Amino acid sequence: MLVLGIDPGTAIVGYGLVKEHNDGALQAIEYGVIRTPAKTPMPERLNTIYDTLTDIVNEFKPDRAAVEELFFSRNVTTAITVSQARGVILLSLQKAGIRINEYKPNVVKQSISGYGGADKKQMQEMVRMLLNLEKIPKPDDAADALAISITDINIGRFHDL
Amino acid sequence: MLVLGIDPGTAIVGYGLVKEHNDGALQAIEYGVIRTPAKTPMPERLNTIYDTLTDIVNEFKPDRAAVEELFFSRNVTTAITVSQARGVILLSLQKAGIRINEYKPNVVKQSISGYGGADKKQMQEMVRMLLNLEKIPKPDDAADALAISITDINIGRFHDL
Repeated sequence: MLVLGIDPGTAIVGYGLVKEHNDGALQAIEYGVIRTPAKTPMPERLNTIYDTLTDIVNEFKPDRAAVEELFFSRNVTTAITVSQARGVILLSLQKAGIRINEYKPNVVKQSISGYGGADKKQMQEMVRMLLNLEKIPKPDDAADALAISITDINIGRFHDL
Repeated sequence: MLVLGIDPGTAIVGYGLVKEHNDGALQAIEYGVIRTPAKTPMPERLNTIYDTLTDIVNEFKPDRAAVEELFFSRNVTTAITVSQARGVILLSLQKAGIRINEYKPNVVKQSISGYGGADKKQMQEMVRMLLNLEKIPKPDDAADALAISITDINIGRFHDL
């Protein structure tokens, strides 16, 4: 089982591929970020996100994708731009025929750390331990994406995803 | 000059193609809506919007596209879903290499009716007259999209778009 976790954004999209081995061990296969330059027009940035993600999907052929849900209470402008990026992310996964699961940020925290109020540093340390890595994965958005992948695998153990 | 105007949404996307003839006369070449069923998962709906819009672009080969900007003061949930649709709309246009202009709702009202506070009915009647149509174009989202196309043509007469 290989899961592609995605932390959506416009300037930076985090992704992380986690494999669940038959004995239940988790392994980070690949992780990183897609960056788009701030001064580039939005349609071009969306195109870069779409094409790069499509390349990643074609290369690694994940069994499932897990995408963080947006949760904004105040900044509508940020919500709009990140949601546009999220739209092309969902499109890329849909076109590849991959099952997509969506998780709210507090569900990811709950799944990784056991409670919904964990801070960023605690979350990253848990990701490092769960994936048996020497160092915390960088940048932060890649670590977040790995946390989303692990959440999907955890939840898949108890539910038929 | 052929302009494709788009009024973004998730349940319904309005589109309208307006041609500016050499004598300045405007003609509605085609208009309509892309509908997606509410109970379908969002990635499928985004895929339908993307594919249908791409078909329209390939068939009519517009010179420019004009997309309404989102303007939300309150409902963030609606902003998120409409923005996701807007993301795949911008992607489709970008992949076709069409120049994209974006207009706020009040700019469209100003351009069509002469002031930013026109109501829906006044706007639709102006669109009908400007395009020399017998009846007001239906549904509303298609009429809105035609208004966006006309705005782009109007503004293009005074600026180098």
